[in-house]
Amino acid sequence: MDITHIEHIGIAVKNLDESIKYYENVLGLKCYAVEEVTDQKVKTAFFMVGQTKIELLESTSPEGPIAKFIEKKGEGIHHLAFACNNLADTLTEVEGKGIQLIDKTPRKGAEGLDIAFLHPKSTGGVLTELCEHK
Amino acid sequence: MDITHIEHIGIAVKNLDESIKYYENVLGLKCYAVEEVTDQKVKTAFFMVGQTKIELLESTSPEGPIAKFIEKKGEGIHHLAFACNNLADTLTEVEGKGIQLIDKTPRKGAEGLDIAFLHPKSTGGVLTELCEHK
Repeated sequence: MDITHIEHIGIAVKNLDESIKYYENVLGLKCYAVEEVTDQKVKTAFFMVGQTKIELLESTSPEGPIAKFIEKKGEGIHHLAFACNNLADTLTEVEGKGIQLIDKTPRKGAEGLDIAFLHPKSTGGVLTELCEHK
Repeated sequence: MDITHIEHIGIAVKNLDESIKYYENVLGLKCYAVEEVTDQKVKTAFFMVGQTKIELLESTSPEGPIAKFIEKKGEGIHHLAFACNNLADTLTEVEGKGIQLIDKTPRKGAEGLDIAFLHPKSTGGVLTELCEHK
């Protein structure tokens, strides 16, 4: 496993526009992109903080994973994403170490990254994403 | 507000030694320090990931904030800490913008940083820490 940095922190929000206001007006960050990821039923907003992004996530459907997360736990930090090299090999490696994979092979995420999620049951309750810039 | 980077991500764990094993053996990170913060009733372990730290937090008391967090929500991400300049002025500024402060003035946190927490009720459910390296 070759993790280089924290790629982003995903935060579940009820209302993207309201949350963008908080991150811009209070924390002084700048939203540089808004993107819809259809297959995840989310609309996302990105902020750069040093080498890491804040990714706000608003559900576009009451059946989406972010809507269900907020229903259960309320708004808040949803997942932690590490940037790594050789994502496909890394997934094989961590599965061999007993980690439960949500995505067995890389798929396309926001911003064109290859991504895969590890199940929080095997990562100490932290929904963990691995990302690779191709 | 002058945020430079994400200083650390705090993660609540039940057993520090077990969690250190996961971060070292699966994610390939290196624990570089273990520290007890008595007034917060926690034992912490630190890992560097690019410019950001992972801070694992194990409660040293069943009455501590981390024990209560785990009781309510289970293990997982506990807080998000931004590095900023001029923490005292920043607290005045964000309070003026309607943010509820947990710490009205900076106090000492792990690794000798000056820190203060913002209440998650006014930050979209994210327990938010501001830190300054003096």
